[in-house]
Amino acid sequence: MEKDIVIIGGGPAGITAAITTRRYYPNANITLIRKEEKVLIPCGIPYIFGTIDTPEKNLISDTILLNNNINLIIDEVISINKSAMTLTTANGKNLSYHKMIMATGSFPLVPSLPGVDLDNVFVVKKDIEYVRKILDSLDKAKDVIIIGGGFIGLEFADECNKRGNLNVTLIELLPHCLLLACDEEICIRVEKKLSERGVKILPGRKAKAILGEKSVQYVELENGQKIKADVVILGIGVKPNGELALNVGLEVNEKKGICVDDFMRTSDKNIFAVGDCSSKKCYLSGTSITIGLASIAATEARVAGANLFGIRRRMECAISIFSTCFGNLAIGVAGMTEKNAKKLGIDVISVEVSSPDKHPGSIPGTQDSGVKLVFEKYTGLLIGGQIYGGNQVGEMINIIGAMIQHKMRADEICIFQMGTHPMLTASPIAYQIVNAAQIAVMKVRGER
Amino acid sequence: MEKDIVIIGGGPAGITAAITTRRYYPNANITLIRKEEKVLIPCGIPYIFGTIDTPEKNLISDTILLNNNINLIIDEVISINKSAMTLTTANGKNLSYHKMIMATGSFPLVPSLPGVDLDNVFVVKKDIEYVRKILDSLDKAKDVIIIGGGFIGLEFADECNKRGNLNVTLIELLPHCLLLACDEEICIRVEKKLSERGVKILPGRKAKAILGEKSVQYVELENGQKIKADVVILGIGVKPNGELALNVGLEVNEKKGICVDDFMRTSDKNIFAVGDCSSKKCYLSGTSITIGLASIAATEARVAGANLFGIRRRMECAISIFSTCFGNLAIGVAGMTEKNAKKLGIDVISVEVSSPDKHPGSIPGTQDSGVKLVFEKYTGLLIGGQIYGGNQVGEMINIIGAMIQHKMRADEICIFQMGTHPMLTASPIAYQIVNAAQIAVMKVRGER
Repeated sequence: MEKDIVIIGGGPAGITAAITTRRYYPNANITLIRKEEKVLIPCGIPYIFGTIDTPEKNLISDTILLNNNINLIIDEVISINKSAMTLTTANGKNLSYHKMIMATGSFPLVPSLPGVDLDNVFVVKKDIEYVRKILDSLDKAKDVIIIGGGFIGLEFADECNKRGNLNVTLIELLPHCLLLACDEEICIRVEKKLSERGVKILPGRKAKAILGEKSVQYVELENGQKIKADVVILGIGVKPNGELALNVGLEVNEKKGICVDDFMRTSDKNIFAVGDCSSKKCYLSGTSITIGLASIAATEARVAGANLFGIRRRMECAISIFSTCFGNLAIGVAGMTEKNAKKLGIDVISVEVSSPDKHPGSIPGTQDSGVKLVFEKYTGLLIGGQIYGGNQVGEMINIIGAMIQHKMRADEICIFQMGTHPMLTASPIAYQIVNAAQIAVMKVRGER
Repeated sequence: MEKDIVIIGGGPAGITAAITTRRYYPNANITLIRKEEKVLIPCGIPYIFGTIDTPEKNLISDTILLNNNINLIIDEVISINKSAMTLTTANGKNLSYHKMIMATGSFPLVPSLPGVDLDNVFVVKKDIEYVRKILDSLDKAKDVIIIGGGFIGLEFADECNKRGNLNVTLIELLPHCLLLACDEEICIRVEKKLSERGVKILPGRKAKAILGEKSVQYVELENGQKIKADVVILGIGVKPNGELALNVGLEVNEKKGICVDDFMRTSDKNIFAVGDCSSKKCYLSGTSITIGLASIAATEARVAGANLFGIRRRMECAISIFSTCFGNLAIGVAGMTEKNAKKLGIDVISVEVSSPDKHPGSIPGTQDSGVKLVFEKYTGLLIGGQIYGGNQVGEMINIIGAMIQHKMRADEICIFQMGTHPMLTASPIAYQIVNAAQIAVMKVRGER
């Protein structure tokens, strides 16, 4: 019998779910329903503003859906009858399904700040028309303020700065940017780099109000300071889009993330959920966490798509792994920071080492690349890593990610077999991940 | 009691052995004996000729030995009395030891070719004076021939070509360069890149003789062709330096590699051996293999240095992992190639996928990056990977290396949690390693 499978959402999670489903169910009738006519690459959105300059160059092509024989419907699902296994769309379409995957993504958080509704105040929406409006406003602007120094806020700041004709100021509530994602050393390194590149960073400041008549003119801080702004971009985070799930009676958590089990099934066993809209468990504590990363979303989609009519894959937990870069400084984070581990009550040993990223260091283009590894104090288990350096960092953090996923201890990492090359990596004597682990072993021995 | 530990050899293996020993035996009297006044970074030697231009910029500083309180003796060990646990050097010094680590490295292979002794015919020696001679000869040369298209030969060819005033020709016996290290697709890609960069590549040709009066003038091929040459560089491989070990009655294998157990102990339990001079076991077949890689040497040194007076670490086998690059094309290989696996009688499934290495592909500097993964046909076990792309490849091959070391199967790699970023990696939907594994899973299912 031909099965009907419906996927709701057309971002990386929805697309990956559709492709994976097709691989395992070659004869199924697979339909992807999404609201957007065109789909922006979510992580690429900041780069529209300085590097690629038009949203058209940051689209996910529908070719991949066509090639996989996925039916595409541009519409919005407004109700689901779980017992009848049918759904209704905003345009009045009725579809039945045997299995469904929700990949409805996330919403940008909007702070409850006076003036937040003024013209030229934007959040980061995955919407091409909305992005065009931001671009138009930036074209006419002189002073731009980014509120929120997480990695999206920083990427926007750097990209706006690349436009060349803007004064870019970033306001962050906490004592440092990125402080929820990285330990302080990396935060400071990134702030320094962005400052050198011309972004004015104001950490430890709270926005009190956005001021203006029709359009924004100033951002007022709690200390009374008023900063000129023609455009304000709010990058303070995202929340799961569990609206539809909640409305149709699926279990959601306190943040409206759709609750899923280790197989990506919701409280209705015919409905799966993946990506930013679904609940995630911390790999270390097992508690609920929020991770808004396309890469993790895609992994979840690969689990769900294989499990629809029988369990093949299990994803017990999620590890936050991400990277970004500002000019020639790239950074990456995987798993727990030292600070977050301590917040969880975990005793840790952390080690930082750095080395030239080529060898000898006399090779042109050599720069310093450093690794910080965080281990459980008494077991030596690797629970997190942070890294900075050149663009190799984007893949190097995935080595650390692999080690965390494999529950490696410091003593095992010491004898990791790796390849090194003068033009591409640190020297074999100074390979950062291994050397950090060796130092940790000595510390762990001291603590046992 | 203060222990005397002697390390013979000052390359990456010897240095790493010394540092590791110091970590575990803080009060030991550690002495490193080496022949060379100054130590060249071995993998950096090709880059002296085009990129960094002087051997002085490719040295390993002795600072690391001094900082670790290692005694340094420039001398050559000529005999060892194993029962008395003493050694004698060429300069007549006598030392006693409780434990010894041999890290005597490798010799370049010299082909039995007429004319190989002519002036301006060189091998690749880790010797600063010898390197200077090559540089001097190249300064006066117009036509250079490299014999041997392994990665060292190719690196020399590319670097000589960078000098700008040389006609560089590379002669390779096999139908393609790199054919012992990579599958054909990668070999062809590298040959194409080197040809575009101006190196003349002659695969499938055998050198019959080197011709000249005092100094080389021509290389004659078996087909009778004579090619002009002012300098010839022979890069046909290395052999373990097991001379001293053999002379003092340690067990060596058929290639004169010093036989070691999984703890890096030789047939004398007070003497360890690591690096190019020691025997290695293939991770897949358990049989003896030759690997001449500084990175693997360093790993072995980290094992030996921790094991001297009690076993802490085990290295059952070695995985060949390496990377190199030519202009903007980097390649990496880890573990078995498809060809070598088949030679071992192993049925394999191999999958190749490629993707832009940034996302969207409209980001400036984006290039294609491809992965070939090789799996055991019936189990889905990952046994090898090859990769090409930009300079991220140097670390990306280490992700594959980690997966091989963890004995991951294709179905496990499919749900690998990784980080992705527009400027630094492929897209989460198209992440090459994961997608290759997913395709392999479908093939493995078909074969079960």
